[in-house]
Amino acid sequence: MLELWHNANSTCSQKVRIALAEKGLNWTSHHVNLRTFEQLDAQFLALNPAGMVPVLRHDGRVLRESLVINEYLDDVFPQPALRPADAYARARMREWTLYIAEEPTWAIKAPSYQKNLRPVLAGTKSAEQFEAIAARMPHRENARRWVRAATDGFTREELDVELARLARTLDRMQAALDEHAWLADQTYSLADVDMAPFVHRLAALGEGAMIEMRPRVADWYARMRARPAFARAMGFRPD
Amino acid sequence: MLELWHNANSTCSQKVRIALAEKGLNWTSHHVNLRTFEQLDAQFLALNPAGMVPVLRHDGRVLRESLVINEYLDDVFPQPALRPADAYARARMREWTLYIAEEPTWAIKAPSYQKNLRPVLAGTKSAEQFEAIAARMPHRENARRWVRAATDGFTREELDVELARLARTLDRMQAALDEHAWLADQTYSLADVDMAPFVHRLAALGEGAMIEMRPRVADWYARMRARPAFARAMGFRPD
Repeated sequence: MLELWHNANSTCSQKVRIALAEKGLNWTSHHVNLRTFEQLDAQFLALNPAGMVPVLRHDGRVLRESLVINEYLDDVFPQPALRPADAYARARMREWTLYIAEEPTWAIKAPSYQKNLRPVLAGTKSAEQFEAIAARMPHRENARRWVRAATDGFTREELDVELARLARTLDRMQAALDEHAWLADQTYSLADVDMAPFVHRLAALGEGAMIEMRPRVADWYARMRARPAFARAMGFRPD
Repeated sequence: MLELWHNANSTCSQKVRIALAEKGLNWTSHHVNLRTFEQLDAQFLALNPAGMVPVLRHDGRVLRESLVINEYLDDVFPQPALRPADAYARARMREWTLYIAEEPTWAIKAPSYQKNLRPVLAGTKSAEQFEAIAARMPHRENARRWVRAATDGFTREELDVELARLARTLDRMQAALDEHAWLADQTYSLADVDMAPFVHRLAALGEGAMIEMRPRVADWYARMRARPAFARAMGFRPD
């Protein structure tokens, strides 16, 4: 039995939902409402002390970290394969999935929070009340970003720094796609699965021009959107 | 043919040297002198634009990121195995190797720089000259730390923040070692290989008491030190 603790709009949850959909697996949804801070409930913290979605439970065994979960799914449900057969291409895939976890995952947060969280949070509580909520968040750097979005908001200059980081990610994609059809190799892999939510989020934030000006990336994104697994995973809505 | 661009004292280089030694592989050493900034030479940046050691070249193919390199070595040279056979234990191993790359790798830097770099750098150049060198470092956060160590030095309070992070890493190890003999499983794996240089560095920084007060960690560290591969990898000295 597969159970996923996740959120409809969390990019790291989307990564795992794409992998599950590519493999045609059935799973039980435990939707975690991040706006009411269910990720900070004792019940959820027992599953992941870091207070982060997604968490997968497979036959009672708990897994954390979206890139680790996706490799596990490919280990346990090997068809269709989401890792290249060649060891060197597999290493390139892992270089991508690590880079995605370290770079776009964090660069996307300020622009996302500003556009999606700020309109629903700003003015609803005092700065002290927001700080009190943030004090419960185990990830300190993310707590700082969250308070910023809820109170003063990010400056245009700060958002531009993050968008410049994401532009470098797209440049790196463009260079890789000059070499092969998908990010790690000629075949579709977890590198593509893990990257897709971030490119999609950029488009949703109104930054589609950043994608369109890089033709290989635009073509990759069109091929991603055409995959039924992508549509199913990104279209998930809680009951 | 295996070639490694690395540095004797770099923790991430040590991770890869342990894996190579465990597998009994012969490799050609390209020692990168970090004190004369060879990692910022055009020749090295062509291998790794991030300007970081280690880099492995295997039959002409270039690999970066120590955790990715170590999984590659286990893919290509499967004996002796350094990943658990069970998929769930393998996922736990990857949760460790990711955590090591994200947390102790960065927490160890300020205490290391203060103790090892500061005595040889401080007073040798002006702050402006140090800033000019740092401006060439692709990793901005690390460049900031390096300038700090070379100029004012870190405060006791700042160092204590980093040591508290490392104490939490040791707590996490202690909890895992309560469950099984090695970090990911009953068998030795890349989780242990990747962690060993950080625990060893803590001891070298005079923080051995942090290890000794956690008996499972102290026992694990003694078992690591007893491995010939550990001694060979950590004892590497350039010609």
